[in-house]
Amino acid sequence: MIYFDNAATTWQKPEQVYQTVDDVLRNKSGNPSRGSHQISLDASRVIFKVRKKLADFFNIQDSSQLAFTKNATESSNLIFKGFLNSGDHVIISSLEHNAITRPLHRLEEEGVIDLTVVDTEQGSAEFLTRIKEAITPQTKLVALTHASNVTGNILPVAEVGDLLADKDTALLVDAAQTAGVVPIDIEQLKVDFLVFTGHKALFGPQGVGGFYFNDDFDLEPLLEGGTGGSSKEKLNPDLYPDQYESGTLNTAGIAGLGAGIDFINQTTLTQIRKHEMRLLEKLTAGLQQISEIELLTSQISEERVGVTSFRVQGIDAVTVGQLLNSEYQIAVRTGLHCAPLAHQSIGSYETGTVRVSFSYFNTLVEVEEFLDALEEIIDFKSND
Amino acid sequence: MIYFDNAATTWQKPEQVYQTVDDVLRNKSGNPSRGSHQISLDASRVIFKVRKKLADFFNIQDSSQLAFTKNATESSNLIFKGFLNSGDHVIISSLEHNAITRPLHRLEEEGVIDLTVVDTEQGSAEFLTRIKEAITPQTKLVALTHASNVTGNILPVAEVGDLLADKDTALLVDAAQTAGVVPIDIEQLKVDFLVFTGHKALFGPQGVGGFYFNDDFDLEPLLEGGTGGSSKEKLNPDLYPDQYESGTLNTAGIAGLGAGIDFINQTTLTQIRKHEMRLLEKLTAGLQQISEIELLTSQISEERVGVTSFRVQGIDAVTVGQLLNSEYQIAVRTGLHCAPLAHQSIGSYETGTVRVSFSYFNTLVEVEEFLDALEEIIDFKSND
Repeated sequence: MIYFDNAATTWQKPEQVYQTVDDVLRNKSGNPSRGSHQISLDASRVIFKVRKKLADFFNIQDSSQLAFTKNATESSNLIFKGFLNSGDHVIISSLEHNAITRPLHRLEEEGVIDLTVVDTEQGSAEFLTRIKEAITPQTKLVALTHASNVTGNILPVAEVGDLLADKDTALLVDAAQTAGVVPIDIEQLKVDFLVFTGHKALFGPQGVGGFYFNDDFDLEPLLEGGTGGSSKEKLNPDLYPDQYESGTLNTAGIAGLGAGIDFINQTTLTQIRKHEMRLLEKLTAGLQQISEIELLTSQISEERVGVTSFRVQGIDAVTVGQLLNSEYQIAVRTGLHCAPLAHQSIGSYETGTVRVSFSYFNTLVEVEEFLDALEEIIDFKSND
Repeated sequence: MIYFDNAATTWQKPEQVYQTVDDVLRNKSGNPSRGSHQISLDASRVIFKVRKKLADFFNIQDSSQLAFTKNATESSNLIFKGFLNSGDHVIISSLEHNAITRPLHRLEEEGVIDLTVVDTEQGSAEFLTRIKEAITPQTKLVALTHASNVTGNILPVAEVGDLLADKDTALLVDAAQTAGVVPIDIEQLKVDFLVFTGHKALFGPQGVGGFYFNDDFDLEPLLEGGTGGSSKEKLNPDLYPDQYESGTLNTAGIAGLGAGIDFINQTTLTQIRKHEMRLLEKLTAGLQQISEIELLTSQISEERVGVTSFRVQGIDAVTVGQLLNSEYQIAVRTGLHCAPLAHQSIGSYETGTVRVSFSYFNTLVEVEEFLDALEEIIDFKSND
């Protein structure tokens, strides 16, 4: 099988991820921070080390400002609901995923916040101008995806960070599509909240995500419950990161994420990025050769991650995906990819797209096989 | 190592749990419900089957009324925050865990709910009378642990279910300590919300929990985000269980939980319960022989799960735990076990307790070794 759905989840993980999950599950999965016996201490140590590793990976000086969640959706919900108050104004881009838009729409419907969506399709300079214009004294947060999960285009988050540097407005960056393929330095990007998930380009298993938070801002927890220590307190203890991590953590999953980070550090981000760009160039060149293909990219930037959306003239996206799956054992994603706003932006709201998304484990040969399969499907359908 | 901290997490899992997690992680971990290609469909099928298996296990007729979360804490927070509204009254017992009390205390502090704690230490009949007396027209929910994580005593939840049968008050049962060792039939118990975690007696890995919900009641989601289908909707779709499962699910973890349920079904709950009771009897008999031991049980019932708390005269609980760990490689938990209310009830709030908690994988020989170790520690300390 050729797996080109890595923007949804990287199915193939480095061997050390599988082995680490199994080893920790078998040998070190006490309840972390909930006991002073060996197996609980082993689990605590696993969590501590991975937290430190992730903090280093994102250049977070104090690893206690990094909390684990189950996925990016929990992270964004926690931040929105724990940070925003009645009367706050929030700005997002028109390329956001439902993990950003839906919790904000909920807060908007409840009358808690005002929400402004800034269009990305007039290019980067105009985007920055419009963000600047949209900011009011009530603007508490600008929340941006680092790269679109539909088109792969990277947003100018560092420039937005600069723009907000002298303001009280916080910047949230959703790194679901970039963590593990694009270098992320929270200081350089001037990010106040970084949301990430473990199971995509960071090569962890599903069920683990997290976020970085700037502790200059007040952030209430989303879940109250047992935190191991400070059992007597009626509410979650005012401790980082404990107050955001109620309930038993996913020890083996977190360990697997740590092994994913090790793999990335060993391979180097530079090498991973280079490989993905090589795959993307070959794919783009091939798709441009096929006259029935309409590439769908955002105008926000030239810079991309290894994600491409397109339509095929005369064949709907779902049919293309089904034929690729059933006849060629090639896995792509079709439809709206949980990001309806993005499709409104690029003009594919009614049709959806075929999306190809790479990981480091894909090869140039797979791209060739994919292009051949696509041409056969187009030939076959045009003679249908 | 002798592992007697199973109320925190069962560290030893059936071999099939390890193997299933590894197999699903390697071979079937597409993104469930987010693609129509083979590997995504495989993941969806894994989730569907485990959901059905769990529904059967708890006698839930419609498996779409069972949603997955990351742990019992997420489940209880989701229900409290999605079900309770301004002016509602809630009743809990004095044996609740922080996963129940802390989110309710938060709602109480915010002025959303009124909270009544009903004492368990006057026995079962008095407990039921007091619950009856505490109910007002505003009482929206009675939330009870099925068994105390400190003393192991089982609460009369079926009797409370009967008591509420003709009322609009919902019953929530926290099955963290009973699911997998005591038969749970949601119809028999007349439960409206059942909260469970996967990583204790159900033998799943950490990072997976869930809840059953009676769909006669309105329950708002806690997390909004991508749900795979219905991408165009601004909010979570009004679909069960999708609306409560935003973000990517923990496919391999859920599969592991399914393998845990298989093991329980193969072994039978009857056999598991019998074995735990045998261990508990031997432990209790042994502890009663040691004059320095003070057993700490709740007066709420005779019926117990395999959890026991005690104090040792003249040696504080933490020291007992540390010596058991360092000198005998025996893992027990000491302290408050995230349940301060329970310690106030049984009179161990200041001292904490030594807690021994069993799983099916413990043996009578281990209990003997533990009792011997405890006597040696007491001898050693009395000659200190």
